[in-house]
Amino acid sequence: MSAEVLTIGDELLRGEIVDSNKSYLSDRLLSLDIETRFHSSVRDDPADMVDAFERAKARSQIVLVSGGLGPTRDDLTVEILAQAFGRKLVLHEPSLEAIRAFFQRFGREMAKNNEKQAWFPEGAEVLPNPVGTAPGTYLREGDTHFFCMPGVPSELYLMMDEQVLPRVAAARSDGPGGRVVRSRLLRTFGMGESNLDEMLGDVAKNGDVVLGFRTAFPDNFLRPLTRGDTAEAADAKLAEVVETIRERLGPMVYGEGEQTLESVVGAALREAGKTVAVAESCTGGGIGERFTRVEGSSGYFLGGVVAYANAAKVELLGVPEALLEEHGAVSEPVARAMAEGVRERLGADFGVSTTGISGPGGGSDDKPVGTVWIAVAQPGGTHAECFLFPFDRDRHRQVTAQVALDWIRRALLGEEFVAPRYLRTARP
Amino acid sequence: MSAEVLTIGDELLRGEIVDSNKSYLSDRLLSLDIETRFHSSVRDDPADMVDAFERAKARSQIVLVSGGLGPTRDDLTVEILAQAFGRKLVLHEPSLEAIRAFFQRFGREMAKNNEKQAWFPEGAEVLPNPVGTAPGTYLREGDTHFFCMPGVPSELYLMMDEQVLPRVAAARSDGPGGRVVRSRLLRTFGMGESNLDEMLGDVAKNGDVVLGFRTAFPDNFLRPLTRGDTAEAADAKLAEVVETIRERLGPMVYGEGEQTLESVVGAALREAGKTVAVAESCTGGGIGERFTRVEGSSGYFLGGVVAYANAAKVELLGVPEALLEEHGAVSEPVARAMAEGVRERLGADFGVSTTGISGPGGGSDDKPVGTVWIAVAQPGGTHAECFLFPFDRDRHRQVTAQVALDWIRRALLGEEFVAPRYLRTARP
Repeated sequence: MSAEVLTIGDELLRGEIVDSNKSYLSDRLLSLDIETRFHSSVRDDPADMVDAFERAKARSQIVLVSGGLGPTRDDLTVEILAQAFGRKLVLHEPSLEAIRAFFQRFGREMAKNNEKQAWFPEGAEVLPNPVGTAPGTYLREGDTHFFCMPGVPSELYLMMDEQVLPRVAAARSDGPGGRVVRSRLLRTFGMGESNLDEMLGDVAKNGDVVLGFRTAFPDNFLRPLTRGDTAEAADAKLAEVVETIRERLGPMVYGEGEQTLESVVGAALREAGKTVAVAESCTGGGIGERFTRVEGSSGYFLGGVVAYANAAKVELLGVPEALLEEHGAVSEPVARAMAEGVRERLGADFGVSTTGISGPGGGSDDKPVGTVWIAVAQPGGTHAECFLFPFDRDRHRQVTAQVALDWIRRALLGEEFVAPRYLRTARP
Repeated sequence: MSAEVLTIGDELLRGEIVDSNKSYLSDRLLSLDIETRFHSSVRDDPADMVDAFERAKARSQIVLVSGGLGPTRDDLTVEILAQAFGRKLVLHEPSLEAIRAFFQRFGREMAKNNEKQAWFPEGAEVLPNPVGTAPGTYLREGDTHFFCMPGVPSELYLMMDEQVLPRVAAARSDGPGGRVVRSRLLRTFGMGESNLDEMLGDVAKNGDVVLGFRTAFPDNFLRPLTRGDTAEAADAKLAEVVETIRERLGPMVYGEGEQTLESVVGAALREAGKTVAVAESCTGGGIGERFTRVEGSSGYFLGGVVAYANAAKVELLGVPEALLEEHGAVSEPVARAMAEGVRERLGADFGVSTTGISGPGGGSDDKPVGTVWIAVAQPGGTHAECFLFPFDRDRHRQVTAQVALDWIRRALLGEEFVAPRYLRTARP
């Protein structure tokens, strides 16, 4: 089955926004084992839009369109789609009612131009939009299935998952060899793609199981996909594959789907009734920023210290000056003192610290750029380790924060503090 | 002049990465007053690539291609471009030497497959790549100018600005009505687009001056563009327009081009020989993280406290418990005590604090979600203000951090602490 994604809007072609809808839609199609062959974008220009629709019909069976469903003069997608295939526009009363109701919920009157959003090409199916005013359109032209969705990501995501994907799956089952497909996204941290491939290479030996890899620095995502003659068969196979992966990778799999590491750690802290505090040098506040992205993080995240200057380490964390003089700020004793200091001062269950040289300056023969100490203090004692992360400043800080978050998760699970296998561990 | 951007690579069509090259390239073309009409992406598939090249030749004069210049089997851009237009591939000795030298600089031997990167279509011009192994290609086919660039953003950006844009400008001057164009990016914070438009609407009255707007939350970028019969005329006009804008907006313009607010504030602190410390509640470490993104920030950023829990405000900042009990954590006295506390404890010239309710939970009638106090403590006294930012959690934290950074900049400039005009100021 050949698929393409078409996004529409002047703002895209002017480079005002980075178009993330295309990658989102292609990723979701892959979850049904459908590869995208073309991405294209055109302006709100009728002639260019007609060309794009005709070309899509000629070369693709699935065409996902986003953008141009709004109420303004520039929003032409549905009108031009009808025109391109010689269809009349007809008023869809239930949509008009839904749009009116949408405005009423916010205590506003529907503007005249919103009425336009209730007109659809004759023969099209209307896709409801519970979170916005623009319904979607599903139009079948010969062997080609057109799905028009809003450009606003939150509306697009919901419509894609709830309305479009089931219809795409059904469209495929119509054709020859249509089988049911299931997939899931597993998020891993701590192992590189080639190692993952080695450990899991045999999982996808069977043609009904595909294992996709995707790097999302510093994580690696796995997407197992299974095919079956029935939904039950595909589901059962997927459950089995996920179990195999989880058995082999253990706590390296930290979450699924939309779960982030900070949301997983947060939920684990909340469930255990534990609290955490941070003492950050090279990450500069980035770990705290990560923890507090999560709603309700005040339930377990107490705060901490950004100890960039040595004075901050002494004054706010009680790190002895002698320790700094003897070992330097980037050292095991200082990392330990920082994690223990913040844990004690804030009365937290866990204290986590980072001290390193993210570069590009500040390195020495003894402690080259990339060196970083990470420590976790907890009731049973403090664990500290030194790494040499061979990344630029930005990525060095990202991966350091990720290890720190991951170690809190591992502490809560009672797991070992493993060093990410694709990173060098240095013991100066 | 009609332009299009074509990006090539399986990873794009699988949705593994969000393709930001397209918007970058279109934005840069706009700096020459050239609008992009089409964006497209194809896989590393010879037939699809040939189609895309042929279509581009038929409909566009400027075609910017990115991706597929690497040394692997999948990297086919140059080979297929030659094939599409019936050109032989010829070895470009200087490029081979440059690639060899590139590897030698890193003490490595050039791999055999890198040699491929030194072959180009007959008649093409080679575009040097000082930061990678893949040179670019400039090929003219009839009225169409093809520019092939690497997909790696850092290599692409440099090649686009230094090699491609001047040739695009020259290609346009060849044609009828070709004039010299100049533009600059001005970064502003503190005013919405409609207000900016009101204040600057007359700047672009003359057809030789265009003023572009672009929102990059929480900033707004302006791109003045001027046209002239000569480079001198266009340069002089641009200087005049930029001066007018700067006069009207004053310190609302914080930087130009690639300067970020944290790099501008950092440079100003360094120049003034001043230091700063942070006391963050709702931003959770985000201001520290912003300050420390900048290389060498240890020269002026001392660190600070992430005072999420009240205990952290008391223990690490010396905020009196009575103050917290009487006024609550989100209050003027607490914001002031936080900023003053961190300034004093770390001996910094400036202390800046945030305390607010980013939501979605935690609001009350008295202090609704969105409320935030921001304070700056400095030798002359402390300034504090309350805002009600009507954004989601993520954006609430972003704009709060931006105001905090901006106020340090304004303090150094001796400017007033203005409230962003597009945001509501609340005095509970």
